[in-house]
Amino acid sequence: MAKLILVVFAFALSLASAPASAEGVPTSLQQSGMNLMPWPAHVRLHEGRLALTQQFDIAVTGHPGQRVYDAATRLLQSLQRRSGIEFDQHVVKARSGGEQAELVIDVRRPGVLKLGEDESYRLLIDSGHAVLTAEDGLGALRGLQTFLQLLQSDPNGYYLPAVEIRDQPRFEWRGLMIDVARHFQPVDVIERNIRGMAAVKLNVLHLHLSDNQGLRIQSNVFPELTGLGSNGQYYTQTQIKHIIQYADDRGIIVVPEFDLPAHAVSWLVSHPELASAPGPYHLYTRFGGKNPAFDPSNPETYRFLGRFFKEMANLFPAPYIHIGGDENSGAQWSNNPAIQAYMQPAITSNAALQTQFIQKLAAMITADGKQIIGWDEILQPGLEKGAIIQSWRGKESLYQAVREGHRTILSNGYYLDLLYPASDGYLNDPIPPGTHLGRSTRRNILGGEAEMWSELVRPETIDSRIWPSAAAIAERLWSPQDVRDVAWMYKRLRAVNLQLEGLCLTQIRNQGVLLRQLTGQREVESLRVLVDVISPVRGYQRMASGDYTIYSPLASITDAATANPWAAIQFNEWVDRFVQHPDPDTEQQIRAQLEQWIANDPALETLIQPSPALHPVKPLAQSLVTLSRLGLQALDYIDQKQPAPQAWARQTTTDFLQAREPAAATKLRMVDAVERLVVMALKGDRSSETDAEHGDDRDGD
Amino acid sequence: MAKLILVVFAFALSLASAPASAEGVPTSLQQSGMNLMPWPAHVRLHEGRLALTQQFDIAVTGHPGQRVYDAATRLLQSLQRRSGIEFDQHVVKARSGGEQAELVIDVRRPGVLKLGEDESYRLLIDSGHAVLTAEDGLGALRGLQTFLQLLQSDPNGYYLPAVEIRDQPRFEWRGLMIDVARHFQPVDVIERNIRGMAAVKLNVLHLHLSDNQGLRIQSNVFPELTGLGSNGQYYTQTQIKHIIQYADDRGIIVVPEFDLPAHAVSWLVSHPELASAPGPYHLYTRFGGKNPAFDPSNPETYRFLGRFFKEMANLFPAPYIHIGGDENSGAQWSNNPAIQAYMQPAITSNAALQTQFIQKLAAMITADGKQIIGWDEILQPGLEKGAIIQSWRGKESLYQAVREGHRTILSNGYYLDLLYPASDGYLNDPIPPGTHLGRSTRRNILGGEAEMWSELVRPETIDSRIWPSAAAIAERLWSPQDVRDVAWMYKRLRAVNLQLEGLCLTQIRNQGVLLRQLTGQREVESLRVLVDVISPVRGYQRMASGDYTIYSPLASITDAATANPWAAIQFNEWVDRFVQHPDPDTEQQIRAQLEQWIANDPALETLIQPSPALHPVKPLAQSLVTLSRLGLQALDYIDQKQPAPQAWARQTTTDFLQAREPAAATKLRMVDAVERLVVMALKGDRSSETDAEHGDDRDGD
Repeated sequence: MAKLILVVFAFALSLASAPASAEGVPTSLQQSGMNLMPWPAHVRLHEGRLALTQQFDIAVTGHPGQRVYDAATRLLQSLQRRSGIEFDQHVVKARSGGEQAELVIDVRRPGVLKLGEDESYRLLIDSGHAVLTAEDGLGALRGLQTFLQLLQSDPNGYYLPAVEIRDQPRFEWRGLMIDVARHFQPVDVIERNIRGMAAVKLNVLHLHLSDNQGLRIQSNVFPELTGLGSNGQYYTQTQIKHIIQYADDRGIIVVPEFDLPAHAVSWLVSHPELASAPGPYHLYTRFGGKNPAFDPSNPETYRFLGRFFKEMANLFPAPYIHIGGDENSGAQWSNNPAIQAYMQPAITSNAALQTQFIQKLAAMITADGKQIIGWDEILQPGLEKGAIIQSWRGKESLYQAVREGHRTILSNGYYLDLLYPASDGYLNDPIPPGTHLGRSTRRNILGGEAEMWSELVRPETIDSRIWPSAAAIAERLWSPQDVRDVAWMYKRLRAVNLQLEGLCLTQIRNQGVLLRQLTGQREVESLRVLVDVISPVRGYQRMASGDYTIYSPLASITDAATANPWAAIQFNEWVDRFVQHPDPDTEQQIRAQLEQWIANDPALETLIQPSPALHPVKPLAQSLVTLSRLGLQALDYIDQKQPAPQAWARQTTTDFLQAREPAAATKLRMVDAVERLVVMALKGDRSSETDAEHGDDRDGD
Repeated sequence: MAKLILVVFAFALSLASAPASAEGVPTSLQQSGMNLMPWPAHVRLHEGRLALTQQFDIAVTGHPGQRVYDAATRLLQSLQRRSGIEFDQHVVKARSGGEQAELVIDVRRPGVLKLGEDESYRLLIDSGHAVLTAEDGLGALRGLQTFLQLLQSDPNGYYLPAVEIRDQPRFEWRGLMIDVARHFQPVDVIERNIRGMAAVKLNVLHLHLSDNQGLRIQSNVFPELTGLGSNGQYYTQTQIKHIIQYADDRGIIVVPEFDLPAHAVSWLVSHPELASAPGPYHLYTRFGGKNPAFDPSNPETYRFLGRFFKEMANLFPAPYIHIGGDENSGAQWSNNPAIQAYMQPAITSNAALQTQFIQKLAAMITADGKQIIGWDEILQPGLEKGAIIQSWRGKESLYQAVREGHRTILSNGYYLDLLYPASDGYLNDPIPPGTHLGRSTRRNILGGEAEMWSELVRPETIDSRIWPSAAAIAERLWSPQDVRDVAWMYKRLRAVNLQLEGLCLTQIRNQGVLLRQLTGQREVESLRVLVDVISPVRGYQRMASGDYTIYSPLASITDAATANPWAAIQFNEWVDRFVQHPDPDTEQQIRAQLEQWIANDPALETLIQPSPALHPVKPLAQSLVTLSRLGLQALDYIDQKQPAPQAWARQTTTDFLQAREPAAATKLRMVDAVERLVVMALKGDRSSETDAEHGDDRDGD
């Protein structure tokens, strides 16, 4: 009985902590079938449609620059692939089309790839043609992505709805960081993710280029850095130039990070003389552990870094260099008598010593014409005001930094590798309503950045961690603050996810590969039914429970599972709706899903049996059936309009506890929803619960 | 009635032309569950198994060379990924393990990457450990692939069966050509296909580097060749060196082809002065058409090509350079008075002029230390004996060439782009039984090569044309001649196909992408059921029926369909078996499949309706249902043990004619099988048809 109370209490808690729904977009637009993401600032839907035919063509007027021509040509290709129609026009050039073209793009100036450049655009589509106008080329690029997302079809053909859109971003920094140090990510991984970023209007690619596992960029000045410090996996300067250009073509800035003074093993392998403790150093094959640091008392450290950063400042055109600055425990400094002596008498703490180190670095980098960015640890008294703070440990540093005159970027709450559902990042507003900040202070919050740390991903799985969640974060950073309806977001996210995979991103297709490899079978549908209702354990649980290395296979069921299991998301939504408005149609959907899960089980068990790698997942398969039966029982009670017996509910407690246990580093994500049906059955009526909200099985994560 | 006779007659014909089955491998081995491909020369299965555990490790003895260490390390990674077990050993080095290691690889010498090098190996596995012995490193590489293919699992774990294998290839040239000129294929496409080649013991990668649509390799001597002649898509010298090394690491030779004197547009764009007709020349965006040629009467042509080939001879370490030589119509030569004058009086035909051109080229290339290869058109009187002939137009030139003292390679019958089923290439023996050739003459048939011309593929679809068919050809070229049972080949091919996709080949996963893009939906199972029983029209039918360009979207249902639709292959096999031995189990399998096709239809129609790009496929969906019903009726008649009424059979004629019609450039591939059931029903008994053979819906292709 105590346990049941616990269950009910937990449920009540999850209600209380659920976010308030806010819907800034009229229902008519939400139901229009336009799967735009990020949702534009202003949208008006009109009658009519622009039919897509072989004659579709594009003309560009004004002074657009090459970026717009190339993007328009890519648009032609994308529209062709998604409709199967081959256009007469293949390439968009300066003299292409004319004012009669079906899409006219009018751009006043090419624009410069920098933060704060005008990214606004206006898109007018009627049944005759479409006009995209933008002040500069970057705005046109963003508008072309909106145009592509508007493509729809029905039995009569492919078309774009007649619509009027005026749009501009809410924040100027809309970033994605990829950690290419822990697990190196080859050029094609970066290319396809740049395409994905462009599709959802992200504009900063932050590459975490050095860490204890490797330094990933060729230095011509210090070739030993990759020679000894990279296990052969790094970007050549030719490759990084290609990446920078590829991103630039799509209106995306590439910001390099070199993580200092700690996280420094990969440097110290070839330069142990610059370390705070004696070497030799070897590249880490594991994660976490001690964080060796440069010796800040050694003048050679600065001469070395000065030359290195000068080379990198020339290589990367962006006006920013990220110098890391995180997680320096200071242990090596405390243990080094020479460093302790160096600190006397003025430098009173390791934090102050790090600030001095950062200051010296900043001075050199500023002299190279760049501004520094650092993780929020660098926010210490004395830090120069030009430094940009990236807040990862919490939001407090975000506001503290802007109050102290720094510019900031929010990362806390946007860690993709922790595998929280997309709704989490989506609802994580850098400046929530009610934040007390002055107007100019507020403007120093540049935006936010999704972070993809790579301890537990390889090139084959990384996309499935970034996408589609990063698209939800992209909307948070671009769209008006009041666009925040979660169910509607998921509906669009699901559609956008398919468009993203059309860019050769692998987040959907590679799940099948993993499942087929795990089973040795071609037909994995029954396993997919399970995977679609589980997700990996969240946060740092998986890291904590396994001894992972850079060689770990990362090919288990939790690598195939994703943060956004669609069947669970859909089921939770149906239950939400049913608990609020218990109508027969929704009940039928819920019942059908529960019955499918039960019916799927025999095939699933057959698939799991001969595949030892899948045996750990058996408890989840069993719980899925048990809870599905429970859910059906609950619905039966609800249909009878009498409260379910307490004894029955008591018997469910063990089943719920069991179903909440992680297995194979994954968890079932339909447990809370079934529990809500049980609670509803206990109440014994079908009256609507107006205060009910979306539950998402957070327990234990 | 006339039509029915036609149908029955066509069916009888297809029986008569069916290949004879030959089985060189005992049934016990065929049923052992070892999905080896190519099947080794000698296999003996023993009792017992080597269990795969965390302690699995590898030691290398002898003088193996770096290739073997790297391949052994890759084996560790592959075994890890496929079992989910992380081994204690991560990297195989000279000092790894010892004689106690679970796998000991003993190699006498590293070996040289060249044709004719000893590729034999011996693999002994018992319940304690495994020993792989090879004369040289190349043999060890081949043996490691066999080891990986032996991995199996059951509820008790992952293991390798106790087995004794002695193996060597039948032919020394086992090639794959990829045309990177018509549709350029980026480095990662080549890399993943090299991995696929290595997995099935192919050893020559032939790159078709120039054609009318582009020249795809950077020349430092003539940078204008790609500057003007490549639309920006080509391999830099750094990239091609990487490809060569990547292939070398896997025991694969890279042979470059520069197609001359015709197919020359991409050269003539920047060097119109070397053409046989006045320029300017522009890169083709279409395929076929005229084939402009170099001017063989111009001494500048040879100075230019001499410098170019010297550069390429240094770039590519392989001792061969392929100079093309195909499809020169001679029209430009005939129309050029200067060339006609040059031919007087000694050169009496365009063929003779081409031979003189080839001779001059060969002399230069031989002086650079390379041997030339050319398509079979170059086999003309006067051709130097060192030239290797690649027979593509038929097998006659293969035997003619060896009789004249040339070495030869068979390509005819191995054209992957024509999308014939894997069984075709599989049964295409370079030296069929009964071929009258002397022993040394026979030895001049070096082997064969699968050809992937790229008019109708893009990087996202090319793998699905190469694989898994190329694996069947690989077996033809490696395994003993009498390994040729088609049903058993398909059984193994299906398993090997999954292993190949584990190497990041995309032939399976990208089908889902295309189907999702075509429907805009995530759930495409009902469409997949259809795609699994259709395949693209074969030969040059699709090219003939559409006006394709390098910009064509290539994203329709025929791009998603493959040459080997598994459901159809399986169904045909069941019907084959049933017609020969009408047993109830097989009948039940056939009935279940027919009923599934019928049951699938409503969902399929719902999916097709809102997707105009799928509308052309409707007739196939309808025919699938119609024929499934017919098949069930036929089985009903057969069960009644009375001949079906002629009137019923007559009514089916229209249905069969309709079902044989291509739609959306694809065809249903279960039509013949259903027809065989109808014919069987007409005969009215369940007696076995001992002369029956595999039908594969060749009609109309």
